Amino acid sequence: MKTDKTKVKRAPQRGHYDKETIYSILDNDFVCQIGFVYDGYPVVIPTIYGRKGNYLYFHGASVSRMLVTMEEGVPVSLNVTRTDGIVLARSAFHHSLNYHSVTVFGTAVLVEDEEERWNALKVISDQVLADRWEEVREPNVKEMKATKVLKLEITEASAKIRTGPPKDDKEDYDLDIWAGILPIEKQFGKPIADPELKQGLELPYSVKNAIK
Amino acid sequence: MKTDKTKVKRAPQRGHYDKETIYSILDNDFVCQIGFVYDGYPVVIPTIYGRKGNYLYFHGASVSRMLVTMEEGVPVSLNVTRTDGIVLARSAFHHSLNYHSVTVFGTAVLVEDEEERWNALKVISDQVLADRWEEVREPNVKEMKATKVLKLEITEASAKIRTGPPKDDKEDYDLDIWAGILPIEKQFGKPIADPELKQGLELPYSVKNAIK
Repeated sequence: MKTDKTKVKRAPQRGHYDKETIYSILDNDFVCQIGFVYDGYPVVIPTIYGRKGNYLYFHGASVSRMLVTMEEGVPVSLNVTRTDGIVLARSAFHHSLNYHSVTVFGTAVLVEDEEERWNALKVISDQVLADRWEEVREPNVKEMKATKVLKLEITEASAKIRTGPPKDDKEDYDLDIWAGILPIEKQFGKPIADPELKQGLELPYSVKNAIK
Repeated sequence: MKTDKTKVKRAPQRGHYDKETIYSILDNDFVCQIGFVYDGYPVVIPTIYGRKGNYLYFHGASVSRMLVTMEEGVPVSLNVTRTDGIVLARSAFHHSLNYHSVTVFGTAVLVEDEEERWNALKVISDQVLADRWEEVREPNVKEMKATKVLKLEITEASAKIRTGPPKDDKEDYDLDIWAGILPIEKQFGKPIADPELKQGLELPYSVKNAIK
């Protein structure tokens, strides 16, 4: 997947092009920032995605500007970034971030087959919260009609990763300045029941499994 | 800041255009996804930013493709999104996310004045970790030469926010399905000292203040 567009030019040692690395970063999240050209201007919008095989799936309201634009077959670019920590060096210059990031280039196509549309929505739902799909009321015909599904083949992609401690200039290691990593952690909090929740309903498997 | 480009078309009740809301979302983060058109293709790249007044500042290596492209005065779009929780409805269709998101459109310009460049780097540093700038070795002439600084005036921007419980169809409230919010929390973890850290150095004020 290393092409002229995806080649990591700055800090090339941080670049990764293998599917395993790219998939694992994509699978660790479910919100990406997707960019396309609209009316001559770049537009960057956050959206939910799900990955299955070499495809990313997106969904939304049938009238969504993003989906209507993407459906026309315009090139898109998307990025998923997890920030793992602030890299605190002894010099301002060598401060950095630890992160896992993937950028994908491609062209999305409309999914029209009803079974594929259904499966794509389940893929997206599973990516947000595994097993939730099976617990809830399925989409009805009217809801399926109001929903647009697109898929993007991952043909050009690259990952960029930084891990580990700061790297300071040799002479700075003697300075009396604390250096290290301030980790950034993301986790689920305590579930909040809907104020309208029917009495007697326990937390479902999907939620219990996610917070365990 | 409500223009044809920034107007929130889907779910217009989620759109906000006042500076206070937009600034508060921008100030709560320091990584944005920035998009520009390069060689006819949209490119979306994560980058660190800092806000001061109505300007966003970016920095990087002088040879960075992103900065070199942006410096040419091309239109850019950037997005900052914080996901606050997964909205678990009784129907698959009404599942959603709680989030705070800002999209900014504009054109970046190169900052050339040396004092403004210095101040911009401090703004960015302060945004990542307040008070760190004062604790570390300042940039030297060589480092300043290797660094490019750009600024973007926030002239077009909109925020999109969803909060609160799921909204299900009336008839679905009777279903025996748990509904509510699964919060997503982001916080600093326990600081990790550089393995090369000089003995006897305590955690600095900036870190202690951030994790308290």
